[in-house]
Amino acid sequence: MGDLKFVGKFKIAEGFWGRYSRLVKDVVLPYQEDALNDRIEGAEKSHCIENFRMAAEKLRTGKCSGEFYGMVFQDSDAAKWLEGAAYSLAQKPDPELERRCDELIDLIGEAQHEDGYLNTYFTVKEPGRRWTNLHEAHELYCAGHMIEAAVAYAECTGKKKFLTIMCRMADHIYKHFIEEGAEGYPGHPEIELALMRLYRCTNEERYKELSLHFINVRGVNSDYFAQEKQKNKWSVWGSLADDKEYAQNSAPVRMQTKAVGHAVRAVYLYTGMADAAYETKDASLKDACRTLWNNITGCQMYVTGAIGSAYEGEAFTKDYHLPNDTAYAETCAAIGLIFFSNRMLYLERDGRYADVMERALYNCVLAGMQLDGTRFFYVNPLEVLPGISGEAKTHRHALPVRPKWFACACCPPNAARLISSIADYAWHETDGKLFNNLFISGTLDVREAFQGTVTVQTAYPYDGLVEYRFAPQDGVMSVPLMIHIPAWSHGAVIRRNGEEIPCEIRSGYADVSGDYTAADVLTVELDMSVRRVYADSRVAADTGKAAVACGPLVYCAEGADNEGDVLTLSLKEGGSAVLSDFMPDKLCGIREIYAEGYRTQEQEGLYSEKAPQHTDCRITMIPYYAWGNRGLNPMRVWIPERR
Amino acid sequence: MGDLKFVGKFKIAEGFWGRYSRLVKDVVLPYQEDALNDRIEGAEKSHCIENFRMAAEKLRTGKCSGEFYGMVFQDSDAAKWLEGAAYSLAQKPDPELERRCDELIDLIGEAQHEDGYLNTYFTVKEPGRRWTNLHEAHELYCAGHMIEAAVAYAECTGKKKFLTIMCRMADHIYKHFIEEGAEGYPGHPEIELALMRLYRCTNEERYKELSLHFINVRGVNSDYFAQEKQKNKWSVWGSLADDKEYAQNSAPVRMQTKAVGHAVRAVYLYTGMADAAYETKDASLKDACRTLWNNITGCQMYVTGAIGSAYEGEAFTKDYHLPNDTAYAETCAAIGLIFFSNRMLYLERDGRYADVMERALYNCVLAGMQLDGTRFFYVNPLEVLPGISGEAKTHRHALPVRPKWFACACCPPNAARLISSIADYAWHETDGKLFNNLFISGTLDVREAFQGTVTVQTAYPYDGLVEYRFAPQDGVMSVPLMIHIPAWSHGAVIRRNGEEIPCEIRSGYADVSGDYTAADVLTVELDMSVRRVYADSRVAADTGKAAVACGPLVYCAEGADNEGDVLTLSLKEGGSAVLSDFMPDKLCGIREIYAEGYRTQEQEGLYSEKAPQHTDCRITMIPYYAWGNRGLNPMRVWIPERR
Repeated sequence: MGDLKFVGKFKIAEGFWGRYSRLVKDVVLPYQEDALNDRIEGAEKSHCIENFRMAAEKLRTGKCSGEFYGMVFQDSDAAKWLEGAAYSLAQKPDPELERRCDELIDLIGEAQHEDGYLNTYFTVKEPGRRWTNLHEAHELYCAGHMIEAAVAYAECTGKKKFLTIMCRMADHIYKHFIEEGAEGYPGHPEIELALMRLYRCTNEERYKELSLHFINVRGVNSDYFAQEKQKNKWSVWGSLADDKEYAQNSAPVRMQTKAVGHAVRAVYLYTGMADAAYETKDASLKDACRTLWNNITGCQMYVTGAIGSAYEGEAFTKDYHLPNDTAYAETCAAIGLIFFSNRMLYLERDGRYADVMERALYNCVLAGMQLDGTRFFYVNPLEVLPGISGEAKTHRHALPVRPKWFACACCPPNAARLISSIADYAWHETDGKLFNNLFISGTLDVREAFQGTVTVQTAYPYDGLVEYRFAPQDGVMSVPLMIHIPAWSHGAVIRRNGEEIPCEIRSGYADVSGDYTAADVLTVELDMSVRRVYADSRVAADTGKAAVACGPLVYCAEGADNEGDVLTLSLKEGGSAVLSDFMPDKLCGIREIYAEGYRTQEQEGLYSEKAPQHTDCRITMIPYYAWGNRGLNPMRVWIPERR
Repeated sequence: MGDLKFVGKFKIAEGFWGRYSRLVKDVVLPYQEDALNDRIEGAEKSHCIENFRMAAEKLRTGKCSGEFYGMVFQDSDAAKWLEGAAYSLAQKPDPELERRCDELIDLIGEAQHEDGYLNTYFTVKEPGRRWTNLHEAHELYCAGHMIEAAVAYAECTGKKKFLTIMCRMADHIYKHFIEEGAEGYPGHPEIELALMRLYRCTNEERYKELSLHFINVRGVNSDYFAQEKQKNKWSVWGSLADDKEYAQNSAPVRMQTKAVGHAVRAVYLYTGMADAAYETKDASLKDACRTLWNNITGCQMYVTGAIGSAYEGEAFTKDYHLPNDTAYAETCAAIGLIFFSNRMLYLERDGRYADVMERALYNCVLAGMQLDGTRFFYVNPLEVLPGISGEAKTHRHALPVRPKWFACACCPPNAARLISSIADYAWHETDGKLFNNLFISGTLDVREAFQGTVTVQTAYPYDGLVEYRFAPQDGVMSVPLMIHIPAWSHGAVIRRNGEEIPCEIRSGYADVSGDYTAADVLTVELDMSVRRVYADSRVAADTGKAAVACGPLVYCAEGADNEGDVLTLSLKEGGSAVLSDFMPDKLCGIREIYAEGYRTQEQEGLYSEKAPQHTDCRITMIPYYAWGNRGLNPMRVWIPERR
């Protein structure tokens, strides 16, 4: 296995992602820490840390002074927060933050049983029911997140205590499912990918074996959840144990060809499968992953990279069913799609995986967080209708403004850990080649592999020019550099020291391998023309409409920039679109698009037979990720197009 | 009170409605009789008649040989069937059908308790729980339907046995709620309008008083359902007793300004309110009715006259929320809108009420039934996407083909009784004037009021020419005839004996009052041009789109006529539309529309940046009511429009 990621080796510089790095460190992590400790007024209660305290108290004294509160998977919120904090520490040391992390890790250690078991829900609320409800109780899911956090904390800080704690839990799970042969697989996948990370971090084969076990048994006995329910007779939520699509267990994973069910579960599972295919070179597993990825991105993905069309089951629905106003489009699902695409990229080194990572990242995931880092979307609709969105029964989930926190708070800390770990997605190495997948200003330390550092400077995503400089340890460094050329750019102009160099783009990457000195400047210039995007006509919600994009950013029209109304707007077919200069003071720095369009005059009555009148107008559009930052406001991504 | 309706006095002749009359008599009523008796293979079981048999057995013997089966309101299916049969008998005597009706009425009589109480659910399944769950148990709803049927049967056949049975039940209800002062109002309105019908039929003031009572107490104690649940501690379905919108009890009825909650309940309630306003001349009640009707038809009605956008709660949602593919648009709700509009027409004699009756009738209600009368839609979407409709979780209700029957079978017999009673909506008399609201070939016997008969001959809705002839008893008849000129027609040419007569249209009616002899021919010629219809831009689902209509009919494009696909079609802005000759063999006789349009070429990939190519094409459209009669098939009412 190659050293896929460069954990802690890419330091993000000031710029688009520099702002996000600071935001996560200065605002998001402290805010979420307050939330997990129930210190935010007017926000949903978390009780997450308190659950750990009570579990520790119970193990210490045999008694508990309070009751477990929150979701059955409440522990995972602390895990995700710790994981995000770890990445943030890797970017920039912060002894005070690290001290608080260490304290929380100490508390987690105190909440661990002698036999390695760790889960506050079962310790506080349901002792004696361990492993008897894999379907609903999220034990393996929580363990997975805790493992991921422990691995990240070890990799980012060098401290092993948390890793040791979670190895003990992993050993406990191994004993139960492998040595003692317990049946079953998790209702919510996550442990699979986490164990693969633990394996890569520790080189302990048993963790790989355990991950493969959960992948391989899934869906072989597709009645497992129903049998478990019948046998153990308890339920957390009264979930239907015979809905086999919801948790992707209708068939063995290699037989699955369409993404179905709960979207987050699906992409977490597929991520683990792709990890397994990478580690085992299992061709049938790789084929299944590719088929599923193609189904998602070819038939079930929003233009924003969001997935999961339906509130019902937070789920994938049917091919080409992509409603805009009732979209579920969960932030966590888009994050999971980034995980999955990232692993597919490791597997196949094809730029289309980086394209989807970028699409989901710059659009759906960033939209999941208020620009000031203190409010979050769980659901990311592509159309907001004030008076309907968040209010009609069918739209209760599709909130038009971001809440402060959620009773089920999976998304906010998930966004925090994804954003704070973005460096790990920007670069990777396989087969001895250095891949640059995302354009982020900063410096990559590849002294070990390639005897030097690479510095990137760019105003991306608001400018298409990306500059690479090199700092060899000994005068010259030989870098097998592969630079991702996004599909939307239709090629790129690549220059070395100002002179264009011919460069074939294969599978979405330009091979600019070469010997570089400190005097060399390599530039990549991408095509940042404003583009219209059209959906497959089978997407009924988008027929007759176009979306507008520039670079990796999908744009939207919001009422705030368009006299309060966007439903009467249409884009002029073939009309011009002007990109504004960078506006540092608007929405934390954006470039607007001014598109030629029409404003349809209001008519009389609900149904009129008078042909509507259209007058020329300029439609002002902002990046989708920045919507909903100016109060209640209509918003639309897909806009009717007229000649 | 005037003799509003002419029950049994308008005999429908051959033609569009003649076919429906025959269909109801020859197919629909026998088919539904089989369904109610569980004699249809492959259809959902009804058990409705069997419930009456068991109730009768229990009253006779004190024991029951079986168990109640079906919805708590299963009795109402028999009532609606009997009501439909009564209207059919009024159109054309059928001794054999009448004998079977009498048998069923005898059975119903045997299922009635000594004290007048009649409801098989409570007799068979929940004796002792009478009137303890007004919220869910539909006792007053079932009583209402049985009363309506009894009134219709008495009026159509002259036989009083059923009426006597239901007067005893109404007396029982009066005793309970008025004399004994029991609190409460029905969860599902219906008793209000039924008691008004019973009052008009019997002139018994107590029935009017009882109806007004239920209207006046509704929502005054808006916590009644919750209190009842807490007190009596039983539930049929576990409904939320604190959702006060669902059953329109959040406020006293005169304070309600927006149609909310379960759409059928809403319009049944408003119908009763309009009846009450008519009978009492209560201005505040009339104002509330008008406000609610304006809200429905101005903000919450589909172009097909369907109402209730959401599956969740079968309910109204928010103003301008009218999704096409996930529409609930229940057949019963459109029928209820016809009731409500019919009563508003009595109240205000304004043609806009007749316009809505006609819109709902010719589009949503007729679509609720297969052309052959043996299959039915509960839900009437305006867009059908094979692979998604009826399959995606969000579209489970929006079936793309009509089922044979439903476990909850409110719609099929409701459609049957509405269609078989259509004569009663075509004509009415108020203030001494004779109103013709719908154009149906046939002969109206107004010998009592106007000393003669009026015969209408028309190929409407496929032709705009309507011919009136007169048969005075004594050479000449003085007829204060008011003819509805639909708003879509933008006026009409009216001729007397071939010569155009000037005629002012006021409030949607042309006053052609005059003295007519047998030699006179009055013709009304409506504008049957094909029209484009545009929705208010606040209806997000319809922006950039148009619908096509001709006369009272809304048209749709179905795959069967358009190479299997309708999503790639767009209408040419300002393009021509040709109406075909009448095609007697297609879909039981229709005229197609051929509209100039475009076919968008298929693109590569889910999202493409290539501007789509459009080629000229001819879009074939059929009347919406005839959709879904040729198997699984995409369908669209609202079609993008391009220049």
